[in-house]
Order: sequence, then C-alpha cells, then structure tokens
Amino acid sequence: MPLSVSVFGAAGYTGALTARLLFRHPSFELRTVTARADVGRRLEDLYPHHRVPLELERLDLDRHAELDAAVVAYPHGAAAELVGELRARGVRVVDLSADFRLRDAGVYEQWYRPHPEPELLAEAVYGLPERYRGQIRDADLVANPGCYPTAAVLALAPLARAGLVQDVVIDAKSGVSGAGRAASAKTHFVTVDENVNAYGVPRHRHTPEIEQELAALGAEVRITFTPHLLPLDQGELVSCYVTVGDGAGAADLDLLYRDSYHAEPFIELADAPPGVRDVRETNICRISVHRDQRTGRVIVFAAIDNLWKGAASQAVQNLNVMFGLPEGEGIS
Amino acid sequence: MPLSVSVFGAAGYTGALTARLLFRHPSFELRTVTARADVGRRLEDLYPHHRVPLELERLDLDRHAELDAAVVAYPHGAAAELVGELRARGVRVVDLSADFRLRDAGVYEQWYRPHPEPELLAEAVYGLPERYRGQIRDADLVANPGCYPTAAVLALAPLARAGLVQDVVIDAKSGVSGAGRAASAKTHFVTVDENVNAYGVPRHRHTPEIEQELAALGAEVRITFTPHLLPLDQGELVSCYVTVGDGAGAADLDLLYRDSYHAEPFIELADAPPGVRDVRETNICRISVHRDQRTGRVIVFAAIDNLWKGAASQAVQNLNVMFGLPEGEGIS
Amino acid sequence: MPLSVSVFGAAGYTGALTARLLFRHPSFELRTVTARADVGRRLEDLYPHHRVPLELERLDLDRHAELDAAVVAYPHGAAAELVGELRARGVRVVDLSADFRLRDAGVYEQWYRPHPEPELLAEAVYGLPERYRGQIRDADLVANPGCYPTAAVLALAPLARAGLVQDVVIDAKSGVSGAGRAASAKTHFVTVDENVNAYGVPRHRHTPEIEQELAALGAEVRITFTPHLLPLDQGELVSCYVTVGDGAGAADLDLLYRDSYHAEPFIELADAPPGVRDVRETNICRISVHRDQRTGRVIVFAAIDNLWKGAASQAVQNLNVMFGLPEGEGIS
Amino acid sequence: MPLSVSVFGAAGYTGALTARLLFRHPSFELRTVTARADVGRRLEDLYPHHRVPLELERLDLDRHAELDAAVVAYPHGAAAELVGELRARGVRVVDLSADFRLRDAGVYEQWYRPHPEPELLAEAVYGLPERYRGQIRDADLVANPGCYPTAAVLALAPLARAGLVQDVVIDAKSGVSGAGRAASAKTHFVTVDENVNAYGVPRHRHTPEIEQELAALGAEVRITFTPHLLPLDQGELVSCYVTVGDGAGAADLDLLYRDSYHAEPFIELADAPPGVRDVRETNICRISVHRDQRTGRVIVFAAIDNLWKGAASQAVQNLNVMFGLPEGEGIS
Repeated sequence: MPLSVSVFGAAGYTGALTARLLFRHPSFELRTVTARADVGRRLEDLYPHHRVPLELERLDLDRHAELDAAVVAYPHGAAAELVGELRARGVRVVDLSADFRLRDAGVYEQWYRPHPEPELLAEAVYGLPERYRGQIRDADLVANPGCYPTAAVLALAPLARAGLVQDVVIDAKSGVSGAGRAASAKTHFVTVDENVNAYGVPRHRHTPEIEQELAALGAEVRITFTPHLLPLDQGELVSCYVTVGDGAGAADLDLLYRDSYHAEPFIELADAPPGVRDVRETNICRISVHRDQRTGRVIVFAAIDNLWKGAASQAVQNLNVMFGLPEGEGIS
Repeated sequence: MPLSVSVFGAAGYTGALTARLLFRHPSFELRTVTARADVGRRLEDLYPHHRVPLELERLDLDRHAELDAAVVAYPHGAAAELVGELRARGVRVVDLSADFRLRDAGVYEQWYRPHPEPELLAEAVYGLPERYRGQIRDADLVANPGCYPTAAVLALAPLARAGLVQDVVIDAKSGVSGAGRAASAKTHFVTVDENVNAYGVPRHRHTPEIEQELAALGAEVRITFTPHLLPLDQGELVSCYVTVGDGAGAADLDLLYRDSYHAEPFIELADAPPGVRDVRETNICRISVHRDQRTGRVIVFAAIDNLWKGAASQAVQNLNVMFGLPEGEGIS
Repeated sequence: MPLSVSVFGAAGYTGALTARLLFRHPSFELRTVTARADVGRRLEDLYPHHRVPLELERLDLDRHAELDAAVVAYPHGAAAELVGELRARGVRVVDLSADFRLRDAGVYEQWYRPHPEPELLAEAVYGLPERYRGQIRDADLVANPGCYPTAAVLALAPLARAGLVQDVVIDAKSGVSGAGRAASAKTHFVTVDENVNAYGVPRHRHTPEIEQELAALGAEVRITFTPHLLPLDQGELVSCYVTVGDGAGAADLDLLYRDSYHAEPFIELADAPPGVRDVRETNICRISVHRDQRTGRVIVFAAIDNLWKGAASQAVQNLNVMFGLPEGEGIS
Repeated sequence: MPLSVSVFGAAGYTGALTARLLFRHPSFELRTVTARADVGRRLEDLYPHHRVPLELERLDLDRHAELDAAVVAYPHGAAAELVGELRARGVRVVDLSADFRLRDAGVYEQWYRPHPEPELLAEAVYGLPERYRGQIRDADLVANPGCYPTAAVLALAPLARAGLVQDVVIDAKSGVSGAGRAASAKTHFVTVDENVNAYGVPRHRHTPEIEQELAALGAEVRITFTPHLLPLDQGELVSCYVTVGDGAGAADLDLLYRDSYHAEPFIELADAPPGVRDVRETNICRISVHRDQRTGRVIVFAAIDNLWKGAASQAVQNLNVMFGLPEGEGIS
C-alpha cells in the first residue's frame, strides 16, 4: 500500500515540482495539494510541463492531515506554525523553508525574526542525506537545506572534515527560479536578460546555515558568501575559494574527495569545472576541486539544480530515507 | 534656443527611452518627466543605462504645460484625456498610445472601448514618417504607430501601393519589452526563457491599425495577424505571407522595393532575411522580400527594435519632422 | 532477454539522446555507439548530462551488426548506404536522416540529390506512429520524420483528413539544437542570442515531406513553409494558417481534434496556444486550434521538443511499436 | 583635417567594433580595414549592425602604413611583429593584444611564450587612461588592457593605493563575446545557453597583468583570479573579495572611492551592486564597494562591457588621449 503524502504550498516553484515528483513516485500517493492564491485551479494549468491533474485546495487540516508524510513549501516564517500543527497530529514532515534549518533560535532571530516554534527545533534534523542519513532515517521533522547551503556544504565537507578550512569565500551564481514565482521588477525578463549582478550583499540569509554546517564538520569559520543572479532559469554554481592551513600542501585532494564521496549515489566528481547544464533536472551535485599552486588556495566548484537537489528532489530523497525506501526512488 | 519638451509617463519602457533620447537631443531641452507610481525617484535610478538624472514628478499641468512639444506615453484609454488637455493649451503632441491611431471612432470602440476624445481624431496624423511625412510636418497631434503596425506597414507598403496584395498572413515575433514594464506571470523570466508561444489569438488589437494603413495604400484586405513572444528583450520581426494577384508574376520585387525606399534614411533593404540584432537600438527597419516560385506567394520580412523604431525613436523622428529639424537628429 | 540495439552516429545531438534513452530502456540493451570524429571518447565526456558511460567506436559492421535493431543518425545522403548494409544483414532499422522519408526518388533528387539506395524506398515506412502505427509494427525500415514535419503533420492531420485544407502557410520556430552540433557562425552564441531570423527561404527541404504527408491525408496542396531560428536550445513551434473550404464554417474544430487524438498517448490538446516549455524533454506534441472569425482562417499551433518527439524519443517510440513493446516504454 | 587611422585585424569582434567607432569618429578618418580570412567581404556584411561599408583588405604595409595611427587587433603572439613594423614606419599604435601589456619579458614568456619583440616593451605604455593618462599622451605604443584587468584594476586601485590590499580573490563573469568570433564547441549556443561554468582554472593568463598593475599601485600580492562564462553576449562583472590590513576598519570606503574617481568621466560609483546591463555598449566602468562587517573583508564589484571599455572603446579613448582630443570623443 502506498504511503500517503500531501504538499502544502504547491503553487510555488519548489512545491509544484515536489508535487510532480511525488505524483509519479512508485511508493507514495499524492493526496492533496494546497495553495493560498490559486485555489480551485489545477496544478497542470499553472505548470503544464509538470502534468499533475490535481486541483489546488485551501488548507483544511481536519481533512488534510491524515497522512504518513507531508511536505511544507511555505515561505520562511509562515511554515513553522503549520509544521507544528502537522507534528501535533503525528505527521512526519519535510519542511522546505528556513524555519528549522538553524539549530540555534538566537541565530535564527538574528537573521530572520523571533522563532515562532522554538520548541520544535530540537527534534528537527538537517536534511542533507550525505551528512545526516542516519538521523534522517528516524526523524519526524526534516529541515530541507537551502539551495546554496546544499551546494556549498557538499563542496566543502571533505576539506572541513580534514581540518583544512581556515577561511572561505563563496561566490555563488543562481538561475532566476531561485527567486521564486512572485513577479517583480527583479524577476522581469527584461531586468535579468543579458545581465548579471550580485544581491544580498553583504549579508545573505544562507550565510549562518553554511557556517553552522561547516562548524559541525569542525571548521569554525566566518565565511563571505555572495550570490549573483544569472540569466538562466534553473541551476546553481558555487565557486569556493578556500584558504587551507599550513601543511595542507601534501594532501591529495582528489583522494580526499573520492574517499568522501565514492559511495554517494548523487555526488559526481569531475576533473573539469562543472556546468549547471550537467546537472539540470537531476538530484546530482557535481563537484571539482583544484589547487592554485601560486597562492596555495584550494578552489572547489559545485553545481546543482536549485529546484531539484537544492529543494524538491532533495525533499523526496529525504522522504525516501525517512521511510526506508531506496534513496533514489522517484528521483533518478 | 532649444525647443522645450516633456515626457508624460516616463517610468515605462517607451517613455523612459524617449526621455533618454530627448535628454541628449541637440535641439530639444527635456523639461519634465512625469509618472504616476515612481514620483520622486530619479529616472537614472529606475534605468541606470539611460543615464537621465531627472526626477520623476507628479503631473501638474499648470506647471508642466508651457511647452513647445510633449510626448505622452500613457496606457491606451488613459492617454486621450491628457492629450486633449495639452492640445487645449496649444502644445504639439506625439502620443505613443493607441488612442489616436485609428481614424474611425467606431473601429476604436470595437477593439478597445468608446473613444474618450473622438473630436480630436480628425486632427491626428498617423506618425509613420515614411508614409505621412508631409502631413506630420504640419500636425499638432501625431499618433505614433504601434510597433507591429510599423514593421508590417513598412514591409507591405510597396506591394500594397502596387495593387499586389490580395491576402496577407502576418506572423510576428517580439521580445519581452513589448509587453511593458509591469511585472506579471507573463513577463517573469522563468515563464519566457527557453519558450515561445503565440498570444492575442485570434484578435490582437494591432490588427485594425494594420488594415487601416493597408487600405489607405489601396489594399482593402482582412488580415490574419498573430504575434508570438520570444526570449529576448528588444526586437521585433514580422514575417508577411502575401497572396499576390494574377499577373504579378512579372513584377520585379527588388526594383519595386528599391524604388519605394531608396531615399528613406531609416529603411534598409537586405538580400537575406533580416535578424533583429541587425537593428537593435536603432531607428532602422530592415526588410527583405522573396518570391516563393512554387506557390506564387511573396514573403516579406521586416525587423525593427520595438522600443526604438517601434516606439521611442520614431516619436523623436516625428518630433524632428514636426519642427523642421533634420529627420535623424538625436536618433542616428 | 533484452533486445540488442546500437546507435550509429551517436556523437551528434539526436544520436546521443537516442543512445541515452536506449541505455536506460528496460527492454533494450545498448550494445555499441559509433562515431566518426570522437572515436575513443566516452559519450558521457561529450554529453555529461546524458550519463552514458560507453565509448564511441569506429564503425565495423562485422563486429557491430549482430543486432535486433539499429538506429542510424547519419547526415542526409550518408545514411542510405549504411542502412542498406544493415538491412542486408537482417537488422531492423530506424533511420533519423531524410533518406527514406520521401517515397518518390524523383522528389528526393529534386530537393537533395540522386537517391543512393532507391530500391530500399519501397520497404521504408514513414515513422509517425500516430499515422502509420500498423505499418510500423511490421516494418523493417522506418524513416523517422523530420522535426518540422512531425509537428506540422500532427497539427494539420485532422483538418486534412476532413477535407478542410485548401491552402496552408506554416511559420515555424526552432531552437538552436535543431541546427546540430557543428560549430559555425550560425550557431555561435553571439549570433543567435537576442536574435531571430528566418532561414531556408523560400525552399526549405522539409517542404516536400510535409506536402507528401498532407497529400496522403487527402490534401493535395502546395504549402509555404518558413522556419525561423530562436535563441533557445530545445523546442519547436509551428504556427499553421489554414485556408479552409467553403462550408467549413459549421465544423466543430474542437470536436474534430478530440475525435482524432483522444486515444493518442503523446498528443495533448490545449485551449491556449502551447509554448515549447510545455513539452520540453518529452515525447509530447501539444496542439491548439483556433478559428479566426474575421477571415475564416483556421490557425493551429503545435509544439514539440525537436530533439525528442522531433527525433530521438520518436525513434524509440517507433522501436517500441516495431517490437511490440508498450509504446511509451523508456520515453514517458 | 582628420587624422588617418586603420584597423588591422578588423574581422574579429573587437577589431570590428573599433572600426565602427572610428568610422563615425569626428576627428579620425578610417582608411583601411584588414583581415586574413574574410578578404573582399564588406564589414557590414559580416556585422550588419556596425554599418561600416568598407571592404576588408589583405595587409599590404607598403600601401597601408602611411597613417597617423593604427589599431592592431591580432591574436596574442601574432600582433607583436606587425606592431614592430608599424612602429618602424613611425605609426603610433594601440595594440589590443596581450603582447605589450606585461612589462617584463620573462613574465610574458612564463604565461605565453618567448616574447617576439622584447625591445619594444620599453616604449609601451599600459593603456588604462584612468591610471596612465599622462604617459599615454606621449606614447607611440599603447598596450590596450585585457578586459578582466580593466575591470579588476579599476575596482581595486583605490584600495591598493591606500595600502589596504593584503590578499584578493577575484571571481569574474563574462559574456560569450569575450571568447571571440571563432566558432567552437565552447561558443556553440547549445553549450552556453542555460549554463555557467568556470574556465582557465587555476591559471588564467590575465592573472599576471592584474598582479603587475596592483604591484604598480603598491599592492604586491598573488591573486586568485577565476573567470566564468555566462549565457549573455556582452558584459563582464568582477567580484573582488579583499582581505584588508588591520587598522583599515576606520577607513571610509565611500570617500576613498569618491576621491579617487570623482573626476573620471567613465567611472560611475553606485550604492548597489552594478549589473552589466547598466554599462552595455558604453565605455563606462560602474563600481560599488561594500564592507562585510562580520569578516572584515571588503567586497568590490565592477561592471564593464567587455567589447567596449574592455577593448574597443578603450582603444579609442587611448587614441583620443594620444592625439590631444576630448577623451570621450566618438565613444560617449
């Protein structure tokens, strides 16, 4: 019997893609898709290419919460309350918002606002399977990582674990879908086309999430993280410039990365710098690592699809782990 | 002494570009730029690449109407009233809206709504200088053509005048700036990128304008006109498929077009089908004409920049003609 | 036991994609991929996103022809000889070139050159499953349709069969992958970006193929067919302007199309004009039909992915039909 | 009487644009445009949008060297010899190649190959007018800077001069025209579209040029410089991450940059990170500077048009300085 699942907040880009993946997932049955704005419209009318013939409904927990699992794709701040209600009814949740990614409510408050459900933080597991697979298995609340942190942490984890990260500059590049479905001057075609510029300078909200995860790997550093908006729809590249400690000269970087990732089904190591086309519409993170002999710096590039591994397909990967299914089911 | 001019409605794409062209025009002094939404902001903050350091003001005709000339860049329907007020104060006007393009108020009502200022229609001259240069010279109210009609009429005029147009299908392709500055799902980068689709099917409002001008040239035809939206910012191509009458077989098309346009400074004839890149950021309309021997049809392509020859630079061209200036001043 | 298949000419866009689809197809085993230029390189190095870890080999029929099936992705003219050799060895072939699409060697010669293997024409079946499913089932040589004819014939078939096509203008728009992998001034990013232009005017080679298939449906017409190149990678839209006969006024177009296509798994009917994004990376052809009341014309739009339904996934669809497999296996 | 000038190597992107700018320059007369491959074709056939009706000729110094000035747009390595011959005939030269940018022939050899004309290095002046205006005035040989060094040095000069640069990471992003007109897999539309990746890792040839100029400003640092290719035609952004020394905390960065650049006609300071659209088809470098309080780093962004300020219009700016003309003549 398939597991029942619903997507709450399915009208946005990441919620809609999650709904598509679950609608075709062999082990899940997608019960309900909810939205606030487009209630009554069919998801396939909003997103013809997803081909999900379900109608968007208004949230009604009394009708919608008898579920094995839920994916919440609400905006930051708005997600926490719904997650709390779903947890109170015993539903296992993957949350796509930032609300449960930071373990420290004080840090959350510093970058967002007072945390709406601080008591739930303790039970949340950071949903990067390549890092926390064991804990995700038993988790009832999984905080799906941000797109930039997904790429950055996967890029830097082998170095951080080896004690080689003294300082990092992360220059990130993202397609426009990362800005979400809301129409604004910033997402207008004419603004973005033939353009590139940095945004969120110098304090983008993904910074503390990356620092938290690097610290958990042993690298207590303050990072400089700067995202840029590019004229493409899906895809994200992080270029990481790492100052490594003395004595790192002898380390074999290729070996270090192969050791870390040889068993990971969704990590690809490449000799040449990866392009985002290489991972488009996949759950794969493609990584290359290079040493700059002149400066001693190590440069790591990681490419993902921000809507897939950076959000929706990673949410499904987490659900697979939570329910003991093959990790790549429905996303390979 | 320079001529005084203002742009009313300068926050949109075409108004802002008109302001830029007039700000640097050797014979005009740009007095005021007005807007409804962004009052108080400088035009160069909204459009850094235009580099017009003027502040957008709220319309105040008592202060703003002592002018030699005005360009009105209001939405269709909203323009007519302001044009009326400016005319009442003796200001010569170029209107970028559709409000004075159709000579017949009944046709206007059929495609838009009841005409707000029908009595002004009689004095309006259709602002396609290649067609009405003489009348524009003496006009106090010039209705700047729509972007599609500009390209289509220039493409077809030689054939129409020669009595060779029996039937026409016009398949048009436009960049996104043609949809204006308003942010919407339709202009979101992710909607347009890697996409192409028709819109306004089967009744786009530029249809009667093209038919009116073809009729004025002697071709009383009902046309099929279908625009498509392309993933590029500026540029417009019309592909015109003309059923020509019997006996047209012998006509020398190249000679016909050369005769029509050899003295026109802003018409270029090409052997190969023009691309919109060829005319980007220019007032030029580039045309090629081809005979399909198998079907007898004549195919004409015309490329313009929808914001330039399709709107702003053509408005300046009209102003130049109205005030006896060199026709290419400020736009070459 | 899986069916053995090879792709000859797998270094180009369509051959490589066919190889990817067959590499993951549950009922086929991809034996060999051959190429002329990149011999010795792995397909996944040329096309990382296809993730096919096979090495490109030089053609050696003695080693490579023990197969249940072959897909030939050679250039027009070069394919026929290889197809002949494969057929002589009893291999069932799907040919992606134009060499066996035209049933009349004289027409082929008129648009291409003298046909290299005219005696094979008789056994070739035109590989549009929505038209020739029954014959494809028993065919040993299937000529995979051109991308434009696929979209155009699917768009027009219901009208043609109903005797409603008197005249047609087809204005087509294609992404750059349709021009193939060869690097040239025409495919240089800087040439295509922010551009659109017609090409192959007025005699594109897909014209006789469309006319042949319309004639087979009862519409003996000479068409005007004009393709345009757009700044996007994959995707193709045909806009068909049909002059219908008298008495067609009463026909219910929606009903006509629903009747024709309700059982077709890869045809989608839409109310609004389709965009190529709607069908990206699918085997689907999405169609909308509209009546222009003013002119009496019928306008039909059809969108496909030129590399998928326009080439590679249609080849796999044909293989599925030929070998009695579920028609959507490996391509849904 | 106008100054005579020729462009040698006018078939490439930068040579052709230089020819266009000089063809319309009020103080220069463009005598000859030469090329190796497209001899006999008119420049306006290769580049319709430049509208330069001159025919490309084969180089013949006996006929072509009676000039006041020459611009050489040959590939690196090939330029030096022609520059030597032009200098021997007394022609003042702006060279767009890398051949005379590095003052030290040893460094040149290390990054390119043995220098072909080392004795000419002494008389070459680095053609960044904002840095070397005085020397350019009297120079007979000006080495036009690379596009990346132009943006990077302008971004960093105020900090370097103030002794604030301890370490720098430069992450650069460029449009495809920076890769030149040669068609290859790398410049194919389908390769670049919807993609982004780093290249020239970890040793791009613009590195020593940037280091040389930072050293000349007092900052002896080894930099990490990594360019990325973006899906747009013209435009270049450098994102500079600067580790500043202790005691720099109190420095007023805005004041520092205003002091450095307030008199520069082609430098724009902005509060928000600049986009490349802001400077498209201009000679302007637009810069913003930001302090990351958390890390102490200073982040500087600089946007230019790689073909304009990064090459052709800067060459004309240099010519203007060399011949005592208004610095912005022909490029404003």
